[in-house]
Amino acid sequence: MKIVNKVRQMQVLSDKFKKEGKKIAFVPTMGYFHKGHLSLMERGRELADILVISIFVNPIQFGPGEDFMEYPRDLERDLSLAEGVGVDVVFIPEAEEMYPPDYQTYLEVTGLTQHLCGLSRPGHFRGVTTVVAKLFNIVKPDIALFGLKDYQQYIVIKRMVRDLNYDIEVVGCPIIREEDGLAMSSRNTYLTPEQRKSALCLYQGIKLAERLVREGQRDAKIIIKEVIDYIESKPYTQIDYVKICHPETLDDLEYLNDKALLALAVRVGKARLIDNTILEVR
Amino acid sequence: MKIVNKVRQMQVLSDKFKKEGKKIAFVPTMGYFHKGHLSLMERGRELADILVISIFVNPIQFGPGEDFMEYPRDLERDLSLAEGVGVDVVFIPEAEEMYPPDYQTYLEVTGLTQHLCGLSRPGHFRGVTTVVAKLFNIVKPDIALFGLKDYQQYIVIKRMVRDLNYDIEVVGCPIIREEDGLAMSSRNTYLTPEQRKSALCLYQGIKLAERLVREGQRDAKIIIKEVIDYIESKPYTQIDYVKICHPETLDDLEYLNDKALLALAVRVGKARLIDNTILEVR
Repeated sequence: MKIVNKVRQMQVLSDKFKKEGKKIAFVPTMGYFHKGHLSLMERGRELADILVISIFVNPIQFGPGEDFMEYPRDLERDLSLAEGVGVDVVFIPEAEEMYPPDYQTYLEVTGLTQHLCGLSRPGHFRGVTTVVAKLFNIVKPDIALFGLKDYQQYIVIKRMVRDLNYDIEVVGCPIIREEDGLAMSSRNTYLTPEQRKSALCLYQGIKLAERLVREGQRDAKIIIKEVIDYIESKPYTQIDYVKICHPETLDDLEYLNDKALLALAVRVGKARLIDNTILEVR
Repeated sequence: MKIVNKVRQMQVLSDKFKKEGKKIAFVPTMGYFHKGHLSLMERGRELADILVISIFVNPIQFGPGEDFMEYPRDLERDLSLAEGVGVDVVFIPEAEEMYPPDYQTYLEVTGLTQHLCGLSRPGHFRGVTTVVAKLFNIVKPDIALFGLKDYQQYIVIKRMVRDLNYDIEVVGCPIIREEDGLAMSSRNTYLTPEQRKSALCLYQGIKLAERLVREGQRDAKIIIKEVIDYIESKPYTQIDYVKICHPETLDDLEYLNDKALLALAVRVGKARLIDNTILEVR
Protein backbone atom coordinates (compact mmCIF):
# COMPACT_ATOMS: atom_id res chain seq x y z
CA MET A 1 0.00 0.00 0.00
CA LYS A 2 1.41 3.32 -1.13
CA ILE A 3 1.06 6.52 0.89
CA VAL A 4 1.07 9.75 -1.09
CA ASN A 5 1.14 13.25 0.39
CA LYS A 6 1.76 15.51 -2.58
CA VAL A 7 -0.83 16.50 -5.19
CA ARG A 8 1.59 16.24 -8.09
CA GLN A 9 2.77 12.79 -7.01
CA MET A 10 -0.82 11.53 -6.84
CA GLN A 11 -1.63 12.90 -10.31
CA VAL A 12 1.46 11.29 -11.82
CA LEU A 13 0.56 7.98 -10.18
CA SER A 14 -3.04 8.13 -11.44
CA ASP A 15 -1.84 8.95 -14.94
CA LYS A 16 0.38 5.90 -14.81
CA PHE A 17 -2.57 3.67 -13.79
CA LYS A 18 -4.71 5.13 -16.56
CA LYS A 19 -2.04 4.61 -19.21
CA GLU A 20 -1.90 0.98 -18.10
CA GLY A 21 -5.63 0.83 -18.84
CA LYS A 22 -6.53 0.40 -15.17
CA LYS A 23 -9.84 1.50 -13.70
CA ILE A 24 -9.55 3.60 -10.53
CA ALA A 25 -12.09 3.53 -7.69
CA PHE A 26 -11.87 6.32 -5.14
CA VAL A 27 -13.20 6.67 -1.59
CA PRO A 28 -12.69 10.18 -0.14
CA THR A 29 -12.78 10.15 3.68
CA MET A 30 -12.02 12.26 6.73
CA GLY A 31 -10.42 9.23 8.40
CA TYR A 32 -11.22 7.62 11.78
CA PHE A 33 -12.55 4.59 9.97
CA HIS A 34 -15.52 2.51 10.99
CA LYS A 35 -17.25 -0.32 9.17
CA GLY A 36 -19.11 2.20 7.01
CA HIS A 37 -15.84 3.45 5.51
CA LEU A 38 -14.55 -0.07 5.12
CA SER A 39 -17.70 -1.16 3.27
CA LEU A 40 -17.11 1.63 0.73
CA MET A 41 -13.53 0.45 0.24
CA GLU A 42 -14.62 -3.17 -0.15
CA ARG A 43 -17.15 -2.15 -2.80
CA GLY A 44 -14.50 -0.04 -4.55
CA ARG A 45 -12.13 -3.01 -4.43
CA GLU A 46 -14.75 -5.07 -6.31
CA LEU A 47 -15.53 -2.43 -8.93
CA ALA A 48 -12.07 -1.39 -10.14
CA ASP A 49 -8.45 -2.41 -10.64
CA ILE A 50 -6.95 0.23 -8.39
CA LEU A 51 -8.43 1.42 -5.10
CA VAL A 52 -7.41 4.89 -3.95
CA ILE A 53 -8.68 6.44 -0.73
CA SER A 54 -8.00 9.87 0.70
CA ILE A 55 -7.82 10.90 4.33
CA PHE A 56 -8.29 14.62 4.82
CA VAL A 57 -10.25 16.47 7.49
CA ASN A 58 -11.38 19.25 5.17
CA PRO A 59 -11.37 22.53 7.10
CA ILE A 60 -13.67 24.43 4.70
CA GLN A 61 -16.64 22.12 5.24
CA PHE A 62 -16.77 22.95 8.96
CA GLY A 63 -18.61 26.08 10.05
CA PRO A 64 -17.53 28.38 12.88
CA GLY A 65 -18.24 26.65 16.20
CA GLU A 66 -18.31 23.20 14.57
CA ASP A 67 -16.05 20.30 15.52
CA PHE A 68 -13.12 20.72 13.10
CA MET A 69 -10.52 20.85 15.86
CA GLU A 70 -11.81 17.92 17.87
CA TYR A 71 -12.85 15.76 14.90
CA PRO A 72 -11.40 12.35 15.84
CA ARG A 73 -8.17 11.30 14.14
CA ASP A 74 -6.20 8.05 14.32
CA LEU A 75 -4.01 7.75 11.25
CA GLU A 76 -2.07 4.68 12.34
CA ARG A 77 -5.24 2.67 12.92
CA ASP A 78 -6.75 3.96 9.65
CA LEU A 79 -3.73 2.85 7.64
CA SER A 80 -3.79 -0.62 9.10
CA LEU A 81 -7.53 -0.96 8.43
CA ALA A 82 -7.05 0.31 4.85
CA GLU A 83 -4.27 -2.16 4.26
CA GLY A 84 -6.57 -4.89 5.55
CA VAL A 85 -9.20 -4.26 2.87
CA GLY A 86 -6.65 -4.06 0.07
CA VAL A 87 -6.35 -0.33 -0.57
CA ASP A 88 -3.65 0.41 -3.16
CA VAL A 89 -3.02 4.09 -2.50
CA VAL A 90 -3.79 6.33 0.48
CA PHE A 91 -3.70 9.99 -0.44
CA ILE A 92 -3.14 12.17 2.64
CA PRO A 93 -2.79 15.73 1.41
CA GLU A 94 -1.44 18.59 3.48
CA ALA A 95 -3.87 21.39 4.30
CA GLU A 96 -1.24 23.95 3.22
CA GLU A 97 -1.08 22.47 -0.26
CA MET A 98 -4.85 22.00 -0.57
CA TYR A 99 -5.60 25.56 0.55
CA PRO A 100 -2.68 27.92 0.02
CA PRO A 101 -3.09 31.37 1.64
CA ASP A 102 -4.52 33.03 -1.51
CA TYR A 103 -6.95 30.18 -2.23
CA GLN A 104 -10.22 31.53 -3.68
CA THR A 105 -12.11 28.99 -5.82
CA TYR A 106 -15.37 27.44 -4.66
CA LEU A 107 -17.95 25.20 -6.17
CA GLU A 108 -21.60 25.39 -5.33
CA VAL A 109 -24.67 23.26 -6.03
CA THR A 110 -27.36 25.86 -5.50
CA GLY A 111 -30.73 24.11 -5.22
CA LEU A 112 -30.16 20.77 -3.49
CA THR A 113 -28.12 22.44 -0.76
CA GLN A 114 -31.04 24.66 0.30
CA HIS A 115 -32.55 21.78 2.26
CA LEU A 116 -31.82 19.62 5.32
CA CYS A 117 -28.20 19.93 6.51
CA GLY A 118 -27.59 22.72 3.99
CA LEU A 119 -29.86 24.96 6.06
CA SER A 120 -28.41 24.08 9.46
CA ARG A 121 -24.82 24.10 8.26
CA PRO A 122 -24.43 27.07 5.89
CA GLY A 123 -21.35 26.72 3.70
CA HIS A 124 -20.96 23.03 4.57
CA PHE A 125 -21.80 21.63 1.13
CA ARG A 126 -19.83 24.36 -0.61
CA GLY A 127 -16.83 23.04 1.33
CA VAL A 128 -17.71 19.45 0.48
CA THR A 129 -18.22 19.96 -3.26
CA THR A 130 -15.09 22.10 -3.48
CA VAL A 131 -12.84 19.53 -1.85
CA VAL A 132 -14.42 16.65 -3.76
CA ALA A 133 -13.87 18.47 -7.08
CA LYS A 134 -10.24 19.02 -6.06
CA LEU A 135 -9.81 15.38 -5.09
CA PHE A 136 -11.43 14.26 -8.35
CA ASN A 137 -8.94 16.37 -10.31
CA ILE A 138 -6.06 14.94 -8.30
CA VAL A 139 -7.03 11.25 -8.14
CA LYS A 140 -8.79 11.15 -11.56
CA PRO A 141 -11.01 8.21 -10.62
CA ASP A 142 -13.43 6.32 -12.87
CA ILE A 143 -15.68 5.51 -9.91
CA ALA A 144 -16.21 7.36 -6.63
CA LEU A 145 -18.00 5.84 -3.64
CA PHE A 146 -20.02 7.66 -1.00
CA GLY A 147 -22.03 6.41 1.95
CA LEU A 148 -25.80 6.85 1.92
CA LYS A 149 -25.79 7.89 5.58
CA ASP A 150 -24.81 11.29 4.20
CA TYR A 151 -27.69 11.06 1.76
CA GLN A 152 -27.79 14.74 0.89
CA GLN A 153 -24.04 14.78 0.32
CA TYR A 154 -24.47 11.81 -2.01
CA ILE A 155 -27.09 13.47 -4.20
CA VAL A 156 -25.33 16.85 -4.11
CA ILE A 157 -22.16 15.18 -5.40
CA LYS A 158 -24.09 13.18 -7.97
CA ARG A 159 -25.58 16.45 -9.23
CA MET A 160 -22.20 18.19 -9.24
CA VAL A 161 -20.73 15.33 -11.26
CA ARG A 162 -23.60 15.42 -13.74
CA ASP A 163 -23.67 19.22 -14.03
CA LEU A 164 -19.91 19.66 -14.40
CA ASN A 165 -19.62 16.65 -16.71
CA TYR A 166 -17.11 14.83 -14.55
CA ASP A 167 -16.53 11.50 -16.29
CA ILE A 168 -16.95 9.63 -13.01
CA GLU A 169 -19.53 7.11 -11.86
CA VAL A 170 -20.85 7.99 -8.40
CA VAL A 171 -21.82 4.94 -6.36
CA GLY A 172 -23.86 5.21 -3.17
CA CYS A 173 -23.36 2.49 -0.56
CA PRO A 174 -25.84 1.40 2.13
CA ILE A 175 -25.75 2.69 5.69
CA ILE A 176 -23.82 0.41 8.02
CA ARG A 177 -25.25 0.17 11.54
CA GLU A 178 -24.15 -0.99 14.97
CA GLU A 179 -25.89 -4.13 16.20
CA ASP A 180 -28.62 -2.12 17.92
CA GLY A 181 -29.22 0.01 14.82
CA LEU A 182 -27.21 3.20 15.45
CA ALA A 183 -25.75 4.33 12.13
CA MET A 184 -21.96 4.17 12.20
CA SER A 185 -20.32 7.59 12.37
CA SER A 186 -16.96 8.90 13.45
CA ARG A 187 -18.92 11.34 15.60
CA ASN A 188 -20.44 8.52 17.69
CA THR A 189 -17.20 8.70 19.63
CA TYR A 190 -18.41 11.97 21.18
CA LEU A 191 -21.25 10.16 22.99
CA THR A 192 -21.13 9.31 26.70
CA PRO A 193 -22.59 5.87 27.59
CA GLU A 194 -25.87 7.54 28.63
CA GLN A 195 -26.06 9.58 25.43
CA ARG A 196 -25.21 6.49 23.41
CA LYS A 197 -28.48 4.97 24.64
CA SER A 198 -30.46 8.05 23.64
CA ALA A 199 -28.71 8.17 20.26
CA LEU A 200 -30.63 5.07 19.26
CA CYS A 201 -33.71 7.27 18.93
CA LEU A 202 -32.75 8.20 15.35
CA TYR A 203 -32.92 4.57 14.26
CA GLN A 204 -35.98 3.92 16.40
CA GLY A 205 -37.62 6.99 14.88
CA ILE A 206 -37.00 5.54 11.43
CA LYS A 207 -38.49 2.20 12.52
CA LEU A 208 -41.51 4.04 13.93
CA ALA A 209 -42.05 5.90 10.65
CA GLU A 210 -41.70 2.69 8.66
CA ARG A 211 -44.33 1.06 10.85
CA LEU A 212 -46.72 3.99 10.41
CA VAL A 213 -46.31 3.81 6.63
CA ARG A 214 -46.83 0.03 6.70
CA GLU A 215 -50.03 0.62 8.67
CA GLY A 216 -51.27 2.94 5.94
CA GLN A 217 -50.30 6.41 7.15
CA ARG A 218 -49.56 8.69 4.17
CA ASP A 219 -49.63 12.12 5.81
CA ALA A 220 -46.06 13.33 6.16
CA LYS A 221 -46.99 15.84 8.86
CA ILE A 222 -48.45 13.12 11.09
CA ILE A 223 -45.47 10.79 10.61
CA ILE A 224 -43.01 13.61 11.33
CA LYS A 225 -44.95 14.62 14.46
CA GLU A 226 -44.83 11.05 15.81
CA VAL A 227 -41.09 10.78 15.16
CA ILE A 228 -40.41 14.17 16.76
CA ASP A 229 -42.46 13.25 19.84
CA TYR A 230 -40.58 9.99 20.16
CA ILE A 231 -37.14 11.59 19.85
CA GLU A 232 -38.04 14.40 22.23
CA SER A 233 -39.05 11.81 24.85
CA LYS A 234 -35.38 10.75 25.09
CA PRO A 235 -32.87 12.57 27.28
CA TYR A 236 -29.95 14.64 25.88
CA THR A 237 -31.65 15.02 22.48
CA GLN A 238 -32.19 18.21 20.55
CA ILE A 239 -33.77 17.93 17.13
CA ASP A 240 -32.24 19.84 14.26
CA TYR A 241 -34.73 18.54 11.70
CA VAL A 242 -37.04 15.64 10.89
CA LYS A 243 -38.12 15.86 7.24
CA ILE A 244 -39.93 13.80 4.67
CA CYS A 245 -38.93 14.85 1.20
CA HIS A 246 -38.56 13.88 -2.43
CA PRO A 247 -35.50 11.62 -2.72
CA GLU A 248 -34.19 13.47 -5.78
CA THR A 249 -35.21 17.11 -5.42
CA LEU A 250 -35.27 17.10 -1.58
CA ASP A 251 -38.44 19.21 -1.72
CA ASP A 252 -40.77 18.63 1.24
CA LEU A 253 -43.52 16.09 0.59
CA GLU A 254 -46.98 16.51 2.09
CA TYR A 255 -48.22 13.05 1.26
CA LEU A 256 -46.37 9.84 0.57
CA ASN A 257 -46.79 8.00 -2.65
CA ASP A 258 -44.04 5.90 -4.21
CA LYS A 259 -40.71 6.71 -2.48
CA ALA A 260 -39.95 9.35 0.10
CA LEU A 261 -36.79 10.24 1.99
CA LEU A 262 -37.10 10.42 5.76
CA ALA A 263 -34.09 12.40 6.98
CA LEU A 264 -33.20 13.20 10.59
CA ALA A 265 -30.57 15.34 12.27
CA VAL A 266 -30.48 15.26 16.05
CA ARG A 267 -28.00 16.62 18.53
CA VAL A 268 -27.29 14.11 21.28
CA GLY A 269 -25.01 15.79 23.78
CA LYS A 270 -22.37 17.45 21.69
CA ALA A 271 -22.67 14.97 18.80
CA ARG A 272 -24.75 16.05 15.82
CA LEU A 273 -26.04 12.78 14.39
CA ILE A 274 -27.82 12.16 11.10
CA ASP A 275 -29.71 9.20 9.73
CA ASN A 276 -32.17 8.51 6.94
CA THR A 277 -34.17 5.92 5.10
CA ILE A 278 -36.27 5.66 1.98
CA LEU A 279 -39.90 5.10 2.97
CA GLU A 280 -41.55 2.96 0.33
CA VAL A 281 -45.28 2.92 -0.23
CA ARG A 282 -46.42 -0.38 -1.64
CA MET B 1 -11.34 17.21 -38.88
CA LYS B 2 -13.93 15.59 -36.65
CA ILE B 3 -17.03 17.42 -35.43
CA VAL B 4 -18.45 16.25 -32.13
CA ASN B 5 -21.74 17.42 -30.61
CA LYS B 6 -22.30 15.08 -27.69
CA VAL B 7 -20.51 15.26 -24.33
CA ARG B 8 -20.16 11.50 -24.03
CA GLN B 9 -18.75 11.16 -27.53
CA MET B 10 -16.12 13.82 -26.81
CA GLN B 11 -15.10 12.13 -23.54
CA VAL B 12 -14.73 8.75 -25.23
CA LEU B 13 -12.64 10.33 -27.99
CA SER B 14 -10.38 12.12 -25.49
CA ASP B 15 -9.94 8.89 -23.52
CA LYS B 16 -8.85 7.18 -26.72
CA PHE B 17 -6.24 9.89 -27.42
CA LYS B 18 -4.95 9.67 -23.86
CA LYS B 19 -4.66 5.88 -23.98
CA GLU B 20 -2.59 6.30 -27.13
CA GLY B 21 -0.29 8.52 -25.07
CA LYS B 22 -1.24 11.65 -27.01
CA LYS B 23 -1.09 15.14 -25.55
CA ILE B 24 -4.26 17.20 -26.03
CA ALA B 25 -4.28 20.99 -26.48
CA PHE B 26 -7.63 22.74 -26.11
CA VAL B 27 -8.88 26.14 -27.24
CA PRO B 28 -12.37 26.97 -25.92
CA THR B 29 -14.09 29.63 -28.04
CA MET B 30 -17.44 31.28 -28.67
CA GLY B 31 -16.81 31.08 -32.41
CA TYR B 32 -16.82 33.85 -35.05
CA PHE B 33 -13.11 33.42 -35.46
CA HIS B 34 -10.57 36.15 -36.07
CA LYS B 35 -6.79 36.01 -36.16
CA GLY B 36 -6.70 36.04 -32.35
CA HIS B 37 -8.53 32.71 -32.19
CA LEU B 38 -6.41 31.30 -34.99
CA SER B 39 -3.20 32.27 -33.20
CA LEU B 40 -4.34 30.27 -30.15
CA MET B 41 -5.03 27.27 -32.36
CA GLU B 42 -1.67 27.56 -34.09
CA ARG B 43 0.10 27.67 -30.71
CA GLY B 44 -1.94 24.67 -29.54
CA ARG B 45 -1.01 22.84 -32.73
CA GLU B 46 2.68 23.34 -31.86
CA LEU B 47 2.37 22.30 -28.22
CA ALA B 48 0.44 19.02 -28.45
CA ASP B 49 -0.36 15.98 -30.56
CA ILE B 50 -4.08 16.57 -30.74
CA LEU B 51 -5.77 19.96 -31.09
CA VAL B 52 -9.35 20.21 -29.85
CA ILE B 53 -11.37 23.41 -30.02
CA SER B 54 -14.87 24.10 -28.79
CA ILE B 55 -17.42 26.51 -30.22
CA PHE B 56 -20.13 27.41 -27.73
CA VAL B 57 -21.76 30.76 -27.06
CA ASN B 58 -22.13 30.17 -23.34
CA PRO B 59 -25.44 31.68 -22.18
CA ILE B 60 -24.55 31.83 -18.46
CA GLN B 61 -21.64 34.23 -18.95
CA PHE B 62 -23.93 36.92 -20.41
CA GLY B 63 -25.81 39.19 -18.04
CA PRO B 64 -29.35 40.45 -18.57
CA GLY B 65 -29.31 43.13 -21.28
CA GLU B 66 -25.99 41.87 -22.66
CA ASP B 67 -25.44 40.70 -26.23
CA PHE B 68 -26.06 36.95 -25.96
CA MET B 69 -28.74 36.92 -28.65
CA GLU B 70 -26.91 39.07 -31.18
CA TYR B 71 -23.42 37.68 -30.48
CA PRO B 72 -22.10 37.05 -34.01
CA ARG B 73 -22.14 33.48 -35.31
CA ASP B 74 -20.82 31.95 -38.54
CA LEU B 75 -20.24 28.26 -38.05
CA GLU B 76 -19.49 27.40 -41.65
CA ARG B 77 -16.71 29.98 -41.87
CA ASP B 78 -15.38 28.94 -38.44
CA LEU B 79 -15.12 25.31 -39.49
CA SER B 80 -13.26 26.13 -42.64
CA LEU B 81 -10.81 28.37 -40.72
CA ALA B 82 -10.32 25.68 -38.07
CA GLU B 83 -9.63 23.09 -40.75
CA GLY B 84 -7.09 25.49 -42.24
CA VAL B 85 -4.99 25.62 -39.07
CA GLY B 86 -5.09 21.85 -38.57
CA VAL B 87 -7.66 21.42 -35.81
CA ASP B 88 -8.33 17.73 -35.11
CA VAL B 89 -11.63 17.94 -33.27
CA VAL B 90 -14.27 20.67 -33.05
CA PHE B 91 -16.58 20.19 -30.08
CA ILE B 92 -19.87 22.01 -30.60
CA PRO B 93 -22.07 21.13 -27.63
CA GLU B 94 -25.79 21.73 -27.49
CA ALA B 95 -27.01 24.23 -24.90
CA GLU B 96 -29.69 21.72 -23.79
CA GLU B 97 -27.05 19.15 -22.92
CA MET B 98 -24.69 21.66 -21.31
CA TYR B 99 -27.45 23.20 -19.16
CA PRO B 100 -30.39 20.85 -18.61
CA PRO B 101 -33.45 22.45 -16.96
CA ASP B 102 -32.46 21.44 -13.40
CA TYR B 103 -28.84 22.55 -13.80
CA GLN B 104 -27.50 24.04 -10.55
CA THR B 105 -23.73 23.80 -10.17
CA TYR B 106 -21.51 26.87 -10.36
CA LEU B 107 -17.89 27.58 -9.82
CA GLU B 108 -16.59 30.84 -8.46
CA VAL B 109 -13.19 32.47 -8.06
CA THR B 110 -13.99 34.95 -5.33
CA GLY B 111 -11.18 37.50 -5.11
CA LEU B 112 -9.83 38.07 -8.61
CA THR B 113 -13.34 38.53 -9.99
CA GLN B 114 -14.00 41.53 -7.70
CA HIS B 115 -12.06 43.78 -10.04
CA LEU B 116 -12.31 45.22 -13.56
CA CYS B 117 -14.88 43.40 -15.73
CA GLY B 118 -16.04 41.40 -12.71
CA LEU B 119 -17.51 44.60 -11.28
CA SER B 120 -19.21 45.82 -14.47
CA ARG B 121 -20.44 42.36 -15.46
CA PRO B 122 -21.68 40.64 -12.27
CA GLY B 123 -21.93 36.87 -12.76
CA HIS B 124 -19.83 36.97 -15.93
CA PHE B 125 -16.79 35.17 -14.54
CA ARG B 126 -18.95 32.70 -12.65
CA GLY B 127 -20.39 31.75 -16.04
CA VAL B 128 -16.93 31.60 -17.59
CA THR B 129 -15.30 29.47 -14.90
CA THR B 130 -18.30 27.15 -14.78
CA VAL B 131 -18.31 26.47 -18.52
CA VAL B 132 -14.53 26.15 -18.66
CA ALA B 133 -14.58 23.60 -15.82
CA LYS B 134 -17.26 21.67 -17.71
CA LEU B 135 -15.27 21.80 -20.95
CA PHE B 136 -12.12 20.70 -19.12
CA ASN B 137 -13.99 17.68 -17.74
CA ILE B 138 -15.31 16.85 -21.20
CA VAL B 139 -12.21 17.45 -23.33
CA LYS B 140 -9.67 16.40 -20.66
CA PRO B 141 -6.86 18.48 -22.14
CA ASP B 142 -3.22 18.61 -21.05
CA ILE B 143 -2.89 22.21 -22.20
CA ALA B 144 -5.51 24.95 -22.53
CA LEU B 145 -4.92 28.19 -24.41
CA PHE B 146 -6.48 31.58 -23.70
CA GLY B 147 -5.94 34.99 -25.27
CA LEU B 148 -4.38 37.74 -23.19
CA LYS B 149 -6.85 40.31 -24.55
CA ASP B 150 -9.16 38.84 -21.91
CA TYR B 151 -6.43 39.27 -19.34
CA GLN B 152 -8.67 38.97 -16.30
CA GLN B 153 -10.28 35.83 -17.72
CA TYR B 154 -6.81 34.39 -18.22
CA ILE B 155 -5.69 34.91 -14.64
CA VAL B 156 -9.08 33.88 -13.20
CA ILE B 157 -8.84 30.60 -15.11
CA LYS B 158 -5.21 30.13 -14.13
CA ARG B 159 -6.27 30.55 -10.51
CA MET B 160 -9.21 28.19 -10.88
CA VAL B 161 -6.91 25.56 -12.38
CA ARG B 162 -4.39 25.97 -9.59
CA ASP B 163 -6.98 26.05 -6.80
CA LEU B 164 -9.01 23.08 -8.05
CA ASN B 165 -5.87 21.12 -8.96
CA TYR B 166 -6.81 20.65 -12.59
CA ASP B 167 -3.85 18.84 -14.13
CA ILE B 168 -3.82 21.27 -17.05
CA GLU B 169 -1.22 23.79 -18.21
CA VAL B 170 -2.85 27.16 -18.93
CA VAL B 171 -1.09 29.07 -21.70
CA GLY B 172 -1.77 32.77 -22.35
CA CYS B 173 -1.25 34.01 -25.91
CA PRO B 174 -0.48 37.58 -26.99
CA ILE B 175 -3.14 40.02 -28.17
CA ILE B 176 -3.52 40.07 -31.94
CA ARG B 177 -4.29 43.49 -33.41
CA GLU B 178 -5.59 44.93 -36.64
CA GLU B 179 -3.01 46.86 -38.65
CA ASP B 180 -3.94 50.13 -37.00
CA GLY B 181 -3.72 48.61 -33.51
CA LEU B 182 -7.35 47.75 -32.62
CA ALA B 183 -7.36 44.50 -30.66
CA MET B 184 -9.15 41.76 -32.59
CA SER B 185 -12.55 40.90 -31.12
CA SER B 186 -15.69 39.26 -32.43
CA ARG B 187 -17.49 42.30 -31.05
CA ASN B 188 -15.66 44.67 -33.43
CA THR B 189 -18.31 43.64 -35.93
CA TYR B 190 -20.83 45.76 -33.99
CA LEU B 191 -18.94 48.97 -34.92
CA THR B 192 -20.11 51.36 -37.64
CA PRO B 193 -17.29 52.80 -39.80
CA GLU B 194 -17.36 56.01 -37.71
CA GLN B 195 -17.26 54.09 -34.43
CA ARG B 196 -14.47 51.91 -35.80
CA LYS B 197 -12.32 55.05 -36.00
CA SER B 198 -13.12 56.00 -32.40
CA ALA B 199 -12.48 52.41 -31.23
CA LEU B 200 -8.79 52.94 -31.89
CA CYS B 201 -8.73 55.11 -28.76
CA LEU B 202 -8.18 52.02 -26.58
CA TYR B 203 -4.95 51.19 -28.34
CA GLN B 204 -3.96 54.84 -28.57
CA GLY B 205 -4.69 55.18 -24.85
CA ILE B 206 -2.31 52.29 -24.19
CA LYS B 207 0.36 53.92 -26.37
CA LEU B 208 -0.15 57.18 -24.50
CA ALA B 209 0.30 55.45 -21.13
CA GLU B 210 3.41 53.66 -22.36
CA ARG B 211 4.87 56.97 -23.47
CA LEU B 212 4.15 58.59 -20.11
CA VAL B 213 5.85 55.71 -18.30
CA ARG B 214 8.82 55.91 -20.67
CA GLU B 215 9.06 59.62 -19.89
CA GLY B 216 9.27 58.83 -16.18
CA GLN B 217 5.69 59.13 -14.96
CA ARG B 218 5.06 56.71 -12.07
CA ASP B 219 1.83 58.08 -10.61
CA ALA B 220 -1.03 55.77 -11.67
CA LYS B 221 -3.66 58.46 -11.05
CA ILE B 222 -1.98 60.86 -13.47
CA ILE B 223 -1.54 58.23 -16.18
CA ILE B 224 -5.16 57.10 -15.81
CA LYS B 225 -6.40 60.69 -15.97
CA GLU B 226 -4.52 61.30 -19.22
CA VAL B 227 -5.85 58.13 -20.80
CA ILE B 228 -9.41 58.92 -19.72
CA ASP B 229 -9.16 62.46 -21.11
CA TYR B 230 -7.86 61.10 -24.39
CA ILE B 231 -10.61 58.49 -24.74
CA GLU B 232 -13.32 60.94 -23.75
CA SER B 233 -12.15 63.31 -26.49
CA LYS B 234 -13.30 60.74 -29.08
CA PRO B 235 -16.93 60.51 -30.25
CA TYR B 236 -19.22 57.53 -29.43
CA THR B 237 -17.05 56.50 -26.46
CA GLN B 238 -18.22 55.78 -22.95
CA ILE B 239 -15.61 54.58 -20.47
CA ASP B 240 -16.42 51.61 -18.28
CA TYR B 241 -13.04 51.61 -16.54
CA VAL B 242 -9.41 52.56 -16.98
CA LYS B 243 -7.32 50.89 -14.28
CA ILE B 244 -3.71 50.32 -13.37
CA CYS B 245 -3.34 47.28 -11.18
CA HIS B 246 -1.12 44.51 -9.97
CA PRO B 247 -0.87 41.93 -12.77
CA GLU B 248 -1.43 39.00 -10.42
CA THR B 249 -3.74 40.22 -7.65
CA LEU B 250 -5.51 42.88 -9.79
CA ASP B 251 -5.41 45.23 -6.80
CA ASP B 252 -5.21 48.90 -7.76
CA LEU B 253 -1.69 50.30 -7.84
CA GLU B 254 -0.96 53.88 -6.77
CA TYR B 255 2.56 54.01 -8.08
CA LEU B 256 4.31 51.99 -10.75
CA ASN B 257 7.38 49.99 -10.01
CA ASP B 258 8.25 46.80 -11.84
CA LYS B 259 5.21 45.61 -13.82
CA ALA B 260 1.67 46.96 -13.83
CA LEU B 261 -1.41 46.00 -15.77
CA LEU B 262 -3.16 48.81 -17.62
CA ALA B 263 -6.67 47.56 -18.38
CA LEU B 264 -9.40 49.41 -20.28
CA ALA B 265 -13.05 48.77 -21.00
CA VAL B 266 -14.81 51.27 -23.22
CA ARG B 267 -18.19 51.23 -24.86
CA VAL B 268 -18.01 52.44 -28.44
CA GLY B 269 -21.54 52.60 -29.77
CA LYS B 270 -23.09 49.33 -28.71
CA ALA B 271 -19.78 47.43 -28.61
CA ARG B 272 -18.13 47.00 -25.23
CA LEU B 273 -14.43 46.74 -26.05
CA ILE B 274 -11.54 45.79 -23.78
CA ASP B 275 -7.81 46.04 -24.16
CA ASN B 276 -4.76 45.92 -21.90
CA THR B 277 -1.03 45.94 -21.68
CA ILE B 278 1.67 45.35 -19.12
CA LEU B 279 3.43 48.63 -18.35
CA GLU B 280 7.05 47.89 -17.54
CA VAL B 281 9.19 50.23 -15.52
CA ARG B 282 12.86 49.93 -16.45
